[in-house]
Amino acid sequence: MSAEPTSSTTSPTPSSTTSPGTSPGPDPAARKARTGVWLIGARGSVATTAVAGCAAVTAGLHPAAGMITETPDFADSPLPPLASLVFGGHDTVSCPLPKRAEELAAGGVLPHGLPSAVSAELAAADAEIRPGGPGAGDTRCDEELIEAFASDLRGFRDRHSLARVVVVNVSSTEPAPAPGAVRLPPSSLYAAAALRAGCPYVNFTPSTGLHHPALAEAATRGSLPYAGRDGKTGQTLLRSVLAPMFQQRALAVRAWSGTNLLGGGDGAALADPAAAAAKNAGKERVLTDTLGTAPQGEVHIDDVPALGDWKTAWDHIAFDGFLGSRMILQTTWQGCDSALAAPLVLDLARLVARAHECGISGPLPELGFYFKDPDGGSSALSEQYAALIRFALRLRDTR
Amino acid sequence: MSAEPTSSTTSPTPSSTTSPGTSPGPDPAARKARTGVWLIGARGSVATTAVAGCAAVTAGLHPAAGMITETPDFADSPLPPLASLVFGGHDTVSCPLPKRAEELAAGGVLPHGLPSAVSAELAAADAEIRPGGPGAGDTRCDEELIEAFASDLRGFRDRHSLARVVVVNVSSTEPAPAPGAVRLPPSSLYAAAALRAGCPYVNFTPSTGLHHPALAEAATRGSLPYAGRDGKTGQTLLRSVLAPMFQQRALAVRAWSGTNLLGGGDGAALADPAAAAAKNAGKERVLTDTLGTAPQGEVHIDDVPALGDWKTAWDHIAFDGFLGSRMILQTTWQGCDSALAAPLVLDLARLVARAHECGISGPLPELGFYFKDPDGGSSALSEQYAALIRFALRLRDTR
Amino acid sequence: MSAEPTSSTTSPTPSSTTSPGTSPGPDPAARKARTGVWLIGARGSVATTAVAGCAAVTAGLHPAAGMITETPDFADSPLPPLASLVFGGHDTVSCPLPKRAEELAAGGVLPHGLPSAVSAELAAADAEIRPGGPGAGDTRCDEELIEAFASDLRGFRDRHSLARVVVVNVSSTEPAPAPGAVRLPPSSLYAAAALRAGCPYVNFTPSTGLHHPALAEAATRGSLPYAGRDGKTGQTLLRSVLAPMFQQRALAVRAWSGTNLLGGGDGAALADPAAAAAKNAGKERVLTDTLGTAPQGEVHIDDVPALGDWKTAWDHIAFDGFLGSRMILQTTWQGCDSALAAPLVLDLARLVARAHECGISGPLPELGFYFKDPDGGSSALSEQYAALIRFALRLRDTR
Amino acid sequence: MSAEPTSSTTSPTPSSTTSPGTSPGPDPAARKARTGVWLIGARGSVATTAVAGCAAVTAGLHPAAGMITETPDFADSPLPPLASLVFGGHDTVSCPLPKRAEELAAGGVLPHGLPSAVSAELAAADAEIRPGGPGAGDTRCDEELIEAFASDLRGFRDRHSLARVVVVNVSSTEPAPAPGAVRLPPSSLYAAAALRAGCPYVNFTPSTGLHHPALAEAATRGSLPYAGRDGKTGQTLLRSVLAPMFQQRALAVRAWSGTNLLGGGDGAALADPAAAAAKNAGKERVLTDTLGTAPQGEVHIDDVPALGDWKTAWDHIAFDGFLGSRMILQTTWQGCDSALAAPLVLDLARLVARAHECGISGPLPELGFYFKDPDGGSSALSEQYAALIRFALRLRDTR
Repeated sequence: MSAEPTSSTTSPTPSSTTSPGTSPGPDPAARKARTGVWLIGARGSVATTAVAGCAAVTAGLHPAAGMITETPDFADSPLPPLASLVFGGHDTVSCPLPKRAEELAAGGVLPHGLPSAVSAELAAADAEIRPGGPGAGDTRCDEELIEAFASDLRGFRDRHSLARVVVVNVSSTEPAPAPGAVRLPPSSLYAAAALRAGCPYVNFTPSTGLHHPALAEAATRGSLPYAGRDGKTGQTLLRSVLAPMFQQRALAVRAWSGTNLLGGGDGAALADPAAAAAKNAGKERVLTDTLGTAPQGEVHIDDVPALGDWKTAWDHIAFDGFLGSRMILQTTWQGCDSALAAPLVLDLARLVARAHECGISGPLPELGFYFKDPDGGSSALSEQYAALIRFALRLRDTR
Repeated sequence: MSAEPTSSTTSPTPSSTTSPGTSPGPDPAARKARTGVWLIGARGSVATTAVAGCAAVTAGLHPAAGMITETPDFADSPLPPLASLVFGGHDTVSCPLPKRAEELAAGGVLPHGLPSAVSAELAAADAEIRPGGPGAGDTRCDEELIEAFASDLRGFRDRHSLARVVVVNVSSTEPAPAPGAVRLPPSSLYAAAALRAGCPYVNFTPSTGLHHPALAEAATRGSLPYAGRDGKTGQTLLRSVLAPMFQQRALAVRAWSGTNLLGGGDGAALADPAAAAAKNAGKERVLTDTLGTAPQGEVHIDDVPALGDWKTAWDHIAFDGFLGSRMILQTTWQGCDSALAAPLVLDLARLVARAHECGISGPLPELGFYFKDPDGGSSALSEQYAALIRFALRLRDTR
Repeated sequence: MSAEPTSSTTSPTPSSTTSPGTSPGPDPAARKARTGVWLIGARGSVATTAVAGCAAVTAGLHPAAGMITETPDFADSPLPPLASLVFGGHDTVSCPLPKRAEELAAGGVLPHGLPSAVSAELAAADAEIRPGGPGAGDTRCDEELIEAFASDLRGFRDRHSLARVVVVNVSSTEPAPAPGAVRLPPSSLYAAAALRAGCPYVNFTPSTGLHHPALAEAATRGSLPYAGRDGKTGQTLLRSVLAPMFQQRALAVRAWSGTNLLGGGDGAALADPAAAAAKNAGKERVLTDTLGTAPQGEVHIDDVPALGDWKTAWDHIAFDGFLGSRMILQTTWQGCDSALAAPLVLDLARLVARAHECGISGPLPELGFYFKDPDGGSSALSEQYAALIRFALRLRDTR
Repeated sequence: MSAEPTSSTTSPTPSSTTSPGTSPGPDPAARKARTGVWLIGARGSVATTAVAGCAAVTAGLHPAAGMITETPDFADSPLPPLASLVFGGHDTVSCPLPKRAEELAAGGVLPHGLPSAVSAELAAADAEIRPGGPGAGDTRCDEELIEAFASDLRGFRDRHSLARVVVVNVSSTEPAPAPGAVRLPPSSLYAAAALRAGCPYVNFTPSTGLHHPALAEAATRGSLPYAGRDGKTGQTLLRSVLAPMFQQRALAVRAWSGTNLLGGGDGAALADPAAAAAKNAGKERVLTDTLGTAPQGEVHIDDVPALGDWKTAWDHIAFDGFLGSRMILQTTWQGCDSALAAPLVLDLARLVARAHECGISGPLPELGFYFKDPDGGSSALSEQYAALIRFALRLRDTR
């Protein structure tokens, strides 16, 4: 896999490679340069909600609920404004984005009236979606696919004179790659294309992405920031505050069991045991890390198409109190997966874009707040939040 | 209300008033001095569980589940060892402690066999329980009662040559005092006696205690450390980790409703709306403090004698996600109230005893981890835990 | 209170008073006569949903989910067809029905697009809504109000040449009348008007209605069928199948506790303890009747405006199994109150209209399936269902 | 497989073959004859609880909670009294029954003190437990095993001069037999032995038992009553009242998902997917039968050893109301499996014994109330209960 041109990887200010002539930082002109957000799985529910939601918040139609980057703590970190984001992406399906938005509104995921209110923005993003791959019968080799994808990224950046393009994987979870597979999994092909085109990368799914042995070294050595894996939107979010509570209170967790019911594309994808295995590893990690040992119990992910994009997660935690008294905590979380994920996707795109602008490269453990399986750092949400706030200060103070 | 003798209140090292000749700190002899724990409500479920449990853990019959002071973070803060604690207290009922323990074992609160295994310790504590008051038809005035209680405390300290005695209120919640009442509420009589006898004070209940206007100034000006109010054992514990999660994720909580079912004495006491009002104020405080505003919703406390000492708390949280999508979290907590409270009572007695030994006086916001309505500090459990760990270091480093 | 004209109350075929010259029964011409449904609270959520839903099902836009009268068991009981129902009613507010329907669609109670699809039917019903009373400052005495309401009913029947008009109370729950009150409560004024105008009556609320001492005798002696009280749509529906389960399995229920969270008008009305008392009596009745004794536990009804028309009911049931083992069942019911109630309202209007046509008069315990506090019969849903099916056969076989 | 002697299978009064000279029915002498209960899995939790519980209820130590046969409806059906039951059985493990009872008391399944209070009865039953099979390395063929087991049954009957012996399978669920297996599964070996020895048979588990093709015909043609399969103790019990509720209310169930957490032997056995498949088939049958179609959703059975003999079942039911409104019911059932099963086992033994005495043979669909997968009849609990009450009358009226 060939690396990005030398000038990029050795540059102290990576952003200069993509927008030569602008100096990053407080320069007002630089601030006006727009930022690209390239979504892998651009016609999926999360991507559609992110595009429609960014337009809705920008237009003042809705408050920025769920976006941490819109809270006062981030007001002085010069993140790219929501209005400056330009969307595009790859997908293997062809349903137009405005139509997808109408489907989501019919399913109660988007507010009624929103698709028509932001139809121009949806159409604009739709025009920037390119075919993904490899498709069925696709005869291109990995190298050809990576180059095609990287070319799409460069074209997008050039057409819109973007300061930079952040690639965010929000596609359906792919099965864990079989050991000894000769080809890269699709998520890794897109990640390699991001590296090659000099684009920061975020993996919001449990798929392999940059974590493939063939890519990991190039990623770590390179000048690009990246973050992942697997957005923390429901059951694991809860676990990341409850597990520390038990640990801090010296209560012995004996068993932690969970069942997830979800429809939509993710439900079907995760009904595949191989895909679910990747997801569950992240869910259990937070317990093991926090409690110091893996409690008994399993996690199920059921495909229930009747639930559509709504997700229900039930957790049952058996713990021992003083003198061996047996106690139980149960939680039921009912949420809309896309509505939980989309604001985090926008947050991540903005944060990683600004990190790139600041010349930060490599993994970003400071973004562990967003992920089930972060690149290091604590598993406790409160500590992850503290790290994120410190990161906001760093982004503020970097010139 | 007369203050404690001058020698005590002006002493830079309060502990010296009670064990003259010993220097506090690492001196092995001082470490051997025993510490008194005087329980208001000494024949109640929490007190009985604390006495039996302390003996059981000391004897190695059970691990110290639920006791934060037995975790490694506290290993070097020279807290009084469990084996050095001597128990006594006030109560208005007369059922012997060994019999109360048998009742608790029959109800599944204590393990079977434990009451007989620790019968000697139960009997020893029982011998140090004195009649509380004012009883029905009691003609003593407030001053007489305070002096009688203080005399009980001094007698206990002298009989056992205790380094100090920590008074801990674990009695049933009393109704909020009527405005303009001429008498002090009972919890404040006991608190005044603690002040007078030079005893550190912990209020594990929502009753008034030291927070009475007639006592508050003396407490703040005095040389005694104190902590309260209202132990955080279930629903509020959960709220103190869940409310920060919503706040950190910028999710708008619209309504937070709760129902508590509990039997035992506390269920009956809290079925009194006046008593419940005091309790609920603490429960809602954590939400208002964390979320910045009080969400809709009520909290109910139902007396369900069939549940005995077991408590069930159901919470229903309606919150808004991105683009106004409506989501729900529900939690059900099923625990044994006494088993949740007793290890915290032992923790608090040890921490406050050591604080007294270190010459720390006044309110201890560092112990907010334990309380629904603490004397200042954050309402978020993770920050309260961090403050507690810092306090452990202070107790370690004080000579 | 004056009775309806003699010709009506003594007639063996009550329907003939309203459509003289037609003989009830299989005559095709009679079958074509339309049936009036007069809703007390005609601008409320339940009424609006019933009117819009009747039009939607008639037009084939939605299946008849929740309507028992549309199941095969009722195919041969010649109930008035949905298409033959004509709606009107009383209300004290003035918001037009099409606007109310839009509000319900915005709140997710009605499907988007439905209000415009059935706007003609909504407008037609709106044109037949008359002011209710007594309003603030209303100086009319009870007799004047009753006569005014009865006159409204007669005018409606005449304008549309209706075979009969069924009056259904779906207004907000009113407080229980104070003992010794001189005036009739509003629900009883409307009920008296129904009696006077010769209209069958259904009380879907826990309000007094026909159960007032001043009306009860006239109701029982008269020729009109009536049914009530208090539609069984959620928590009590569940209780009516769960309580028999415990009883049949010889499991001893020790405590049954419940909390209801609901917004909308009903939440506010029932936050009034006096109104809630009426509601709760019905909820507990099913337990006492089935279990033979009232278990411990309370029922709360909380007003949570954030939930809008959606209702959450949590039940916690503590029961004893073999050898005193303690077990727990919890249920959480999340439903839309109007969507649960409206099909039952349509069912009841049709069943009571047909009963009237059949010459059936007096209370209808056969409709206990629909009510929390029925006029006799079993409290177990399965037996109530069997009675309803038998009633369908009676309605089929009556000529 | 050889049948029982001709005299038995052709006898109009089957009981006469085992106790010649006694006439069944109201004869006081006959009533005094004792009845054997032979438990397959006699050292398991259910069997131990049944033996201990029968003794405890007989001795008046506990009420007969959970035993339907002790309710007034059965007072006049001359069932064998609890005091007349004699216990024995097969098992492949050797832990003595008194020791198993102590273990169950330590786990909170049996009340403390009960094992010692009924130690004589436990020891008596223990003395009548014979080794089951086939064990590891067992070289006996099916015929030899059946004959050995039948011989055990005859010996038990003769030693105690029992009127009859009812064989009840309460052993761990066995995997569904592989297609084309040459040997009978163990549950079918025991069932064949029951047939051969002329013993009525109850299958309280989902294992094959009499439902094996090699046995089914002999069972149906024979003179013995039998009942099964798979005791309905928790989640399915609930489903058998909830599914009819949805069906009767014409509410469209879209998805019904469930998770069971249980420890004990059953948890481990059912963690085997093959064993779980047998169990789940019964659980889903009640839904399909009642709703007319299988809703979406899965059922999980998780082995959680920390829960011991306590079982938690969570169900999530998504259903559609009027105009497509989406609603949810969730249930959480927390029970002790053995305490739920044991009284039903005693009920079944008594009912089937009396049926045998009455000359009733073949499958008993009237006992569908007790089973997940009954031999015919309705799946709705209320109808099953009505059938059971009618069966009580038949048992009363048979001479």
